[in-house]
Amino acid sequence: MTASPQRSADGARALEQRFVTSQDLFDQETKRIFGRQWLCVAHQQQLESVGGALPIEIEQQQLVLVRDEVGKIRAFRNVCRHRGCQLVTASHCLAHGQSVRCPYHGWTYDRQGRLQAAPHMAGTEGFDPQQYGLLEVPTEVYGGLIWIHQSPRQSLEEYLAPLAGQFADWSTEKLRVVAVCDYDVAANWKLLFQNYSECYHCPGVHPALNRLTPFQGASNQLASGPILGGPMQLAAGCQTMSETGDWVGSRLPQLDDVQARCVHYFTLFPSMFLSTHPDYVLIHLIQRTSVERTHVKCLFLFHPDAVDAAEFEVTAAVGFWDRVNREDWEVCELAQAGMQSEGYRPGPYSALESVVAAFDRHYYQTLELEAAADGRDA
Amino acid sequence: MTASPQRSADGARALEQRFVTSQDLFDQETKRIFGRQWLCVAHQQQLESVGGALPIEIEQQQLVLVRDEVGKIRAFRNVCRHRGCQLVTASHCLAHGQSVRCPYHGWTYDRQGRLQAAPHMAGTEGFDPQQYGLLEVPTEVYGGLIWIHQSPRQSLEEYLAPLAGQFADWSTEKLRVVAVCDYDVAANWKLLFQNYSECYHCPGVHPALNRLTPFQGASNQLASGPILGGPMQLAAGCQTMSETGDWVGSRLPQLDDVQARCVHYFTLFPSMFLSTHPDYVLIHLIQRTSVERTHVKCLFLFHPDAVDAAEFEVTAAVGFWDRVNREDWEVCELAQAGMQSEGYRPGPYSALESVVAAFDRHYYQTLELEAAADGRDA
Amino acid sequence: MTASPQRSADGARALEQRFVTSQDLFDQETKRIFGRQWLCVAHQQQLESVGGALPIEIEQQQLVLVRDEVGKIRAFRNVCRHRGCQLVTASHCLAHGQSVRCPYHGWTYDRQGRLQAAPHMAGTEGFDPQQYGLLEVPTEVYGGLIWIHQSPRQSLEEYLAPLAGQFADWSTEKLRVVAVCDYDVAANWKLLFQNYSECYHCPGVHPALNRLTPFQGASNQLASGPILGGPMQLAAGCQTMSETGDWVGSRLPQLDDVQARCVHYFTLFPSMFLSTHPDYVLIHLIQRTSVERTHVKCLFLFHPDAVDAAEFEVTAAVGFWDRVNREDWEVCELAQAGMQSEGYRPGPYSALESVVAAFDRHYYQTLELEAAADGRDA
Ligand code: FES
Ligand code: FES
Ligand code: FES
Repeated sequence: MTASPQRSADGARALEQRFVTSQDLFDQETKRIFGRQWLCVAHQQQLESVGGALPIEIEQQQLVLVRDEVGKIRAFRNVCRHRGCQLVTASHCLAHGQSVRCPYHGWTYDRQGRLQAAPHMAGTEGFDPQQYGLLEVPTEVYGGLIWIHQSPRQSLEEYLAPLAGQFADWSTEKLRVVAVCDYDVAANWKLLFQNYSECYHCPGVHPALNRLTPFQGASNQLASGPILGGPMQLAAGCQTMSETGDWVGSRLPQLDDVQARCVHYFTLFPSMFLSTHPDYVLIHLIQRTSVERTHVKCLFLFHPDAVDAAEFEVTAAVGFWDRVNREDWEVCELAQAGMQSEGYRPGPYSALESVVAAFDRHYYQTLELEAAADGRDA
Repeated sequence: MTASPQRSADGARALEQRFVTSQDLFDQETKRIFGRQWLCVAHQQQLESVGGALPIEIEQQQLVLVRDEVGKIRAFRNVCRHRGCQLVTASHCLAHGQSVRCPYHGWTYDRQGRLQAAPHMAGTEGFDPQQYGLLEVPTEVYGGLIWIHQSPRQSLEEYLAPLAGQFADWSTEKLRVVAVCDYDVAANWKLLFQNYSECYHCPGVHPALNRLTPFQGASNQLASGPILGGPMQLAAGCQTMSETGDWVGSRLPQLDDVQARCVHYFTLFPSMFLSTHPDYVLIHLIQRTSVERTHVKCLFLFHPDAVDAAEFEVTAAVGFWDRVNREDWEVCELAQAGMQSEGYRPGPYSALESVVAAFDRHYYQTLELEAAADGRDA
Repeated sequence: MTASPQRSADGARALEQRFVTSQDLFDQETKRIFGRQWLCVAHQQQLESVGGALPIEIEQQQLVLVRDEVGKIRAFRNVCRHRGCQLVTASHCLAHGQSVRCPYHGWTYDRQGRLQAAPHMAGTEGFDPQQYGLLEVPTEVYGGLIWIHQSPRQSLEEYLAPLAGQFADWSTEKLRVVAVCDYDVAANWKLLFQNYSECYHCPGVHPALNRLTPFQGASNQLASGPILGGPMQLAAGCQTMSETGDWVGSRLPQLDDVQARCVHYFTLFPSMFLSTHPDYVLIHLIQRTSVERTHVKCLFLFHPDAVDAAEFEVTAAVGFWDRVNREDWEVCELAQAGMQSEGYRPGPYSALESVVAAFDRHYYQTLELEAAADGRDA
């Protein structure tokens, strides 16, 4: 992400094949990474637009997000305590303010997960409704984003501290989710993180993007740890990232003049990309679905005032990023296919890939495979 | 299937997760259940309508059913004794009265399975055609239904004894198969049996069905063993289960006035559901295809006189049951999905699920897992 | 392939089930057969028509074929030496004479595989471009066909010696690839070889083909070893194999009058079928994709003079063979399905299957399973 001469990948090389093919490593990641980290699963605004209950799948777990009677966002196992039926699906959704009713036999839970009604269970000896509330998974909200965790190594505030200013400046909790795009990518999740971590590929892969933010204009703000990235300068004459380079929304209220001339790109290990534009915020939620497949959900966040304006047209941003996303997924899929093949040998990183190397280092450390991080030129 | 206060599930709980996810248990079922029980595979009438040979797949075995020259129904391995080509497929069928001819090199078998002709084999030293008849699987016919077995624990008559009157009253061997519907359900076979065994779900899942046979009108005739179930009363003003509640066929000749006001629902462990209506019989053939998938074939049987009537319109029954079936498969699939997930905990059965508990008990016993049958509240 | 009385299959029987179902045997084949034999992957003419670079997949390996600056055909691993991206795909192809440019970060290789350019790598300490050429797989060209090998037991000339006259007479290196057809067949590769090795099935399976070359007109030229087959006589009044039996191209220049009245069919273990017609050559490239699936690519080769003629219409040959191919794949798939089933027992070969038995013998020997070759009648 930088062309400045002092940066370097320090002799590091691309990932060994097994990191994109091994089921055993996938399972180690489950235990050592995804089971120990904060995972971003949604923006609180998504919840409102679906009648108050959002079914999600994360790390092979089925959850449902609801906002309870006192406004707290909660995540429950999306499984009935009677005979295990899934509770909320795209086609079985809550209306605003309702309780969660199982589609099978009608057991009903309030939005704190308590069993409210269980028809015909009165005659069952020893049945205590209090023992049959929904199982809850801890969540927290920061910057309007909903995070789940199982046994995190640090608090959410500690984890996000390097971006505290960013979230404050862009006021992500006040923005509205105007568009959502879903992608299923045939590549290991780490290849998507690596792809997002360098603009070495931009001239060849993203000619349109490279015109708006030439790859030489990148610099690194965060160069080690779980959160990596920094700003890129917009080219002269461009207001934001869009099909024409013109404004899509209105300039976000808190930004100073320097911020209004940049796009910031951050990767938040291991579940999210964040890019902040002068007039909108783009979030990529990254979810492993198998060793060789990754699901991506993009959220486009705009200021409510911009959205309410008569001339607002979100497709100028969505169309631009949809093209860039597909260009990225194509090379990620080609890299997965090549890395799987017998003829693959990990090559050396260039100076433009110093952030890729930093991602790898953090990954190796988190996986407690520090040894593997030493796989370098002699 | 009953709301009567004396019934109860006796503290039993839903199945543990492994019963709907474990390949090992699936294999144990193969050995201890499906290899030892009578399995219903077709109605004899189906055979006539396909030119005398019906290819079927049951328990991963390829068979072909034929009626031989003396009228006996036989099941053969659907595999040529030369180089193993499949003999009869949907697109390679017999015309009435023909022999079975292999589509590859033309070896031909009569309908008792004997090799009749093997072109160009005369020059093969020591070739004895009598050694190359089709391999046969034992079958029997009862009530017009064709059953196969490998090493059954009891005779077919013993197995079906509890329903002897039922088969006699409805004369299933005289009825005609007027419609066949196929479904592929993404749920373990036991979840379909459980679903069929209670009407606790009827008010919420089947509003149309519940109008015709209100769930309070159920009682249990058979409450333990391999065959379970009993009658439900038709609501006043309803003649049968159909889109309007009006007659589809004509009242079956042998029924008394009490029978003509009921629908009986039975599960025949482990391969069949039987429901007898005043004017028709509906059979669900249930076949496991994997731990998590089940194939269902529905046969609609009507009296020949009704079928020949000018105004006969089978869609009034087929359309009604197709909707009810799909409503059932949807909740079975939601239950499979929920039970597979990490957050599943088996809950307690209600009094309305006493037959579900009886099914479980018979299943556990047959699997020789009596211990598991004790997974109850303390 | 012969009806002459002195031929016989010598008591041999069809393959045991495991040869078409076992992953372990598939892996043994990889090591003992496909890793040790010459494999035909393309005709050199295919290379020209795609801008000079042809991506191929063979034995789960990704390769790209190019003709280098001095005219030599080379096969490289289709994987970039930087981060492993696939280099050439159907949608990322070379224009004539260009170098191979990686679609990800633009590393560029010349057609001898040498790294020509690697943008922004100058600052990477110790980076030596000479160490990052493409990995090469040995190839040779014979009769215009491109063959790869890993560690062959014999030279390509030795392997093809039995067909040296055939290749010379038909001048396959001068012919043009006029049509290519691809098939994905749900059967083990050996069942396709067996199917091609006998015309016992022709009367029943291929009525149209059997009219042009009656199965009684077959004789064996090569009856043991890796290359098997021989000629069949064209029926009176037929010029070649085509929808009408009339000429499609013009008689190939080198053929004598006897050759001009025959079609020769050869199997080249383990990757190719070759059939030579009076006016064209048909090549089937056979590639295992899994135990139960095989990919087939058919190349239709005609003389350039014929192709340039105004009335040339290749569909008369392609349409004919497409029908015959599909008839063959159907019985191969039925045989695979039957052989997988529990009821399969290997039957005896007829005298018309002597070449099938010869194929099996060569297969068993190559697999070093001579013992298995003795699976015969007592
Ligand atoms: S499974 Fe939810 S109420 Fe029965
Ligand atoms: S496989 Fe049936 S006749 Fe050859
Ligand atoms: S992967 Fe080929 S240039 Fe980077």
